Amino acid sequence: MSPPRGVSTRRVHDSLDSIVDHLRGAHRDLDDAQARRFLEALLEAKRIFVMGAGRSGLVGRAFAMRLMHLGFPVYVVGETTTPSVRRGDLVVAISGSGKTLSIVELGRTAREIGARLALVTAQRQSPLADMSHAVLVVKGPPASTGPNDYLARRMRGEYKSLTPLGTLFELTAMVVLDALIAQLMALTGSRESQMKKRHAVLE
Amino acid sequence: MSPPRGVSTRRVHDSLDSIVDHLRGAHRDLDDAQARRFLEALLEAKRIFVMGAGRSGLVGRAFAMRLMHLGFPVYVVGETTTPSVRRGDLVVAISGSGKTLSIVELGRTAREIGARLALVTAQRQSPLADMSHAVLVVKGPPASTGPNDYLARRMRGEYKSLTPLGTLFELTAMVVLDALIAQLMALTGSRESQMKKRHAVLE
Amino acid sequence: MSPPRGVSTRRVHDSLDSIVDHLRGAHRDLDDAQARRFLEALLEAKRIFVMGAGRSGLVGRAFAMRLMHLGFPVYVVGETTTPSVRRGDLVVAISGSGKTLSIVELGRTAREIGARLALVTAQRQSPLADMSHAVLVVKGPPASTGPNDYLARRMRGEYKSLTPLGTLFELTAMVVLDALIAQLMALTGSRESQMKKRHAVLE
Amino acid sequence: MSPPRGVSTRRVHDSLDSIVDHLRGAHRDLDDAQARRFLEALLEAKRIFVMGAGRSGLVGRAFAMRLMHLGFPVYVVGETTTPSVRRGDLVVAISGSGKTLSIVELGRTAREIGARLALVTAQRQSPLADMSHAVLVVKGPPASTGPNDYLARRMRGEYKSLTPLGTLFELTAMVVLDALIAQLMALTGSRESQMKKRHAVLE
Repeated sequence: MSPPRGVSTRRVHDSLDSIVDHLRGAHRDLDDAQARRFLEALLEAKRIFVMGAGRSGLVGRAFAMRLMHLGFPVYVVGETTTPSVRRGDLVVAISGSGKTLSIVELGRTAREIGARLALVTAQRQSPLADMSHAVLVVKGPPASTGPNDYLARRMRGEYKSLTPLGTLFELTAMVVLDALIAQLMALTGSRESQMKKRHAVLE
Repeated sequence: MSPPRGVSTRRVHDSLDSIVDHLRGAHRDLDDAQARRFLEALLEAKRIFVMGAGRSGLVGRAFAMRLMHLGFPVYVVGETTTPSVRRGDLVVAISGSGKTLSIVELGRTAREIGARLALVTAQRQSPLADMSHAVLVVKGPPASTGPNDYLARRMRGEYKSLTPLGTLFELTAMVVLDALIAQLMALTGSRESQMKKRHAVLE
Repeated sequence: MSPPRGVSTRRVHDSLDSIVDHLRGAHRDLDDAQARRFLEALLEAKRIFVMGAGRSGLVGRAFAMRLMHLGFPVYVVGETTTPSVRRGDLVVAISGSGKTLSIVELGRTAREIGARLALVTAQRQSPLADMSHAVLVVKGPPASTGPNDYLARRMRGEYKSLTPLGTLFELTAMVVLDALIAQLMALTGSRESQMKKRHAVLE
Repeated sequence: MSPPRGVSTRRVHDSLDSIVDHLRGAHRDLDDAQARRFLEALLEAKRIFVMGAGRSGLVGRAFAMRLMHLGFPVYVVGETTTPSVRRGDLVVAISGSGKTLSIVELGRTAREIGARLALVTAQRQSPLADMSHAVLVVKGPPASTGPNDYLARRMRGEYKSLTPLGTLFELTAMVVLDALIAQLMALTGSRESQMKKRHAVLE
């Protein structure tokens, strides 16, 4: 028997296990009242503006695209024809730490203008959470810390190398926001066929 | 006792269940040889160019950002300072159907130039798959079709309204690509602290 | 007297001379009837979609931003929340050659949908011009070819090195489109103060 | 004889006159020593990062694209695979007022990291100018104020409606930066044919 050829894929599987476990935990931990307030903020908004830095910004854009498919008047902060935010608008921020500098600044400006702020974050206690009208905490199980400190740290190191930097937050935020889209479809009576028609054909 | 007030969140939970189930199924179905070839194509490339339309494009950008954190020379097709593709480069396409028109055209051009093509898709049989050197099929369980045609269609309708349009493909592609990043970390001996240093501070 | 130190700036001045000369010539050559039809197409459009490749795309975005400041419903093709084009919409294409492949494809799709097409180009005879409802040719003086072929070619080479690739078209298109904005301000009774209010504050 | 039909184009021509006049004045006012220092900063930089808000950001991107065509290692701040700025890098900021909030913040961060800062602006006295190693002031003739204050203000109002908001700065910056490109072509011995080869074919 010859050994398997080529590069290993063991960590692909370990990482997939970690991610799916985390998402299941994030579902378990999802606060229903928070989700409700977040949905209501979206439904009550005159217009919706989405923002986030780095990969969180990409997650925000994926959410914004679906809101557009549902017919919401929605813009991405920083894109070319995004107009000025006004009173009555909702600004949706995606920030795992809740303290991304540029996003905190933008959030402050949005509040001064009189817009409402909705936050998707992993940190309930944070500058952005403090200034937001609706906070949706998306967070799964951190490695359960056992009695053995050394082992716990080692496990946590391994865990991080399977999902580096903000990976788990970004994936969880994307999945939870897509689940909100499913609810918004029902709440707005939208059908997939209508969403398809709004889907950009020039791209 | 008064009933809970506000909008329903039932579909948020149903959608999360569908998504997590799908991801678990996609993990089960992942073809190890395909993943290996995809990783090898990334490791052998002189430079990497990522492309995709709509939300698949956003997933591609999230992947490209992590490749940059790992120190790969990587570009997103269509961004400002992305140079011309040459022989020896790898173009990574993200396309659920494998037949997105603009991406097929770009793929053809890339091949003519002598670049290699790697595809993340849900369809093994497709124009893009036919012209690619490495194809990674990411796909979970479609609603298992039972004997009762009516019921199957009804279930499928419900299923789709919980994850409209390309949602399941986009989420699965994002998760699987993040799992590949975990493997690439190990293969390139990268640590999270190094990735953090490469993380953009101006944004 | 010591000579000036550091790098030369002679070509900065030669290039500025070439550009300003070209713009003056482009103003002289501007076809009034074309400009009128272009303005009318913009005013009659239900919604406006702007597209272009490379630097022409950036010029298009600069134009789209000003149309937004004027209150027009305007989108950039390829941005996140840009909806699908429909009958009654106007697609504005920027293409110096009038035959940029991706833009020709998008133009064809726009026409099939029943949208109108307006083109800013340097080439009156081109695939995009042939399919457009309004064509605005922006073009200044090419180096006037004299009797001496060798000299003419040499001059043209010098000329090109002062304004490489599409530089003259891109600058001329940007300037002419900004001049159309001035006319649209008057035609729509917009004031600069109103435009300032629409200017994005979050960016 | 029937009068000409359709919308007026008078302001198109008035605006073109204003713009070409302004550009000629900006050429006259260009400080040679400033241009030289700016070119030297570009040539000495390990890597170049370009940033600007709104239309100034688009002008920056047009400049970055040409630097890429010339073979410079150049990135646009905020794009997907833009790495972290380090000591030895040059950050190029485009800001008419020299005090755009987000750009001032980014400039401060860049300086703290040990990067150099080069500014294109219309205001010599400004927060960004104060922190920059190279400042290129691009500025043409404001309406020359005559003895009659009322008339001067009225003329200035008219003037502004022909080139609203930052139009004159943005166009002047774009033209001057393109003139720097012509000089950089000579300084780096680049030919247009080489630039064409670096031009993106996938877009």
